[in-house]
Amino acid sequence: MNRATILFATSNRGKLEEAALVLGPLGFSVKGYDGKGVEIQADTTAEVAIHTAKQAASAAGRPVIVEDAGLFVKALNGFPGVYSAYALKTIGIPGVLSLLRKPAAREAKFVSSVAYCEPGGVPKVFGGSVSGTISSSPRGTRGFGFDPIFIPSGHGRTFGELGIDEKCSISHRGQALRRFAKWHASHER
Amino acid sequence: MNRATILFATSNRGKLEEAALVLGPLGFSVKGYDGKGVEIQADTTAEVAIHTAKQAASAAGRPVIVEDAGLFVKALNGFPGVYSAYALKTIGIPGVLSLLRKPAAREAKFVSSVAYCEPGGVPKVFGGSVSGTISSSPRGTRGFGFDPIFIPSGHGRTFGELGIDEKCSISHRGQALRRFAKWHASHER
Repeated sequence: MNRATILFATSNRGKLEEAALVLGPLGFSVKGYDGKGVEIQADTTAEVAIHTAKQAASAAGRPVIVEDAGLFVKALNGFPGVYSAYALKTIGIPGVLSLLRKPAAREAKFVSSVAYCEPGGVPKVFGGSVSGTISSSPRGTRGFGFDPIFIPSGHGRTFGELGIDEKCSISHRGQALRRFAKWHASHER
Repeated sequence: MNRATILFATSNRGKLEEAALVLGPLGFSVKGYDGKGVEIQADTTAEVAIHTAKQAASAAGRPVIVEDAGLFVKALNGFPGVYSAYALKTIGIPGVLSLLRKPAAREAKFVSSVAYCEPGGVPKVFGGSVSGTISSSPRGTRGFGFDPIFIPSGHGRTFGELGIDEKCSISHRGQALRRFAKWHASHER
């Protein structure tokens, strides 16, 4: 198999590590690229990823992937959603938990969109999502972002308690990355 | 005085009404323009307004103003800030109030940036801000957004309880719009 180098436009080291773990065995050498430019305000991770991938591919002059993800809490009408990173650095995990004091429902889902784009090309987008619940308190120190409060359905542990392998085998991001790899393999020249 | 027509790229009728009220007596005829395009994710209202103004001026083929505003709560590290509109439609006013249960400090400020741009030109930006506190419950039905829970310093009433004239005489948006008007008057050909 040809080993394809792919640029991953992200400044998040956790994402980069996960992409290398998922895409490595599928024939990719993943390299970080710190030039994704501005992100747009939109309702979906797909829109954000598509827009950012176009910019990054132009800036890099090479094919890139971009990933946008969010935690969508049902009782909060999808908050923090596409603005998860911003919510994390302002109100943080305690803030999100305090918003869930009253509503009994703690259903949530993590959504990921991976966009692949060649310079001047039209982005192709791959999605993944995982349903679960918000824990009553943070558990585990692995992963990043809201991982310590997200319990994927059918599991007793949070993403923060799972090893990176186990997390990626079920996570929104793992799914989206594998879908990208499958498509890429079938389009290799 | 020449009456200058200015396009205001916004889909918020409340903002349009305020701009007409503030800029009308200063010699402007304000027209709404519903083509501001995508907004970027950024830390400041100025960045959002500048980026959006460039896009809107190109799309309209005429000079435009754009306004971006946010409510920055000190105890929440500036949340909801530039994502105020998103916070409003997801967690809403009850959500923001519930985040403030614990912290005694309820200091906040409303910030506005008005960006003016000619097609192909470099945007010029004008700011305004007003300090205040977050009320314990919503009061008043005027204004929009987080107005019912913001008490400007030195006033006993929320923005939601003030008439539009009184609000605009002290508000972040009123200040920014007047600064724009003053600059525009000194640059008229």
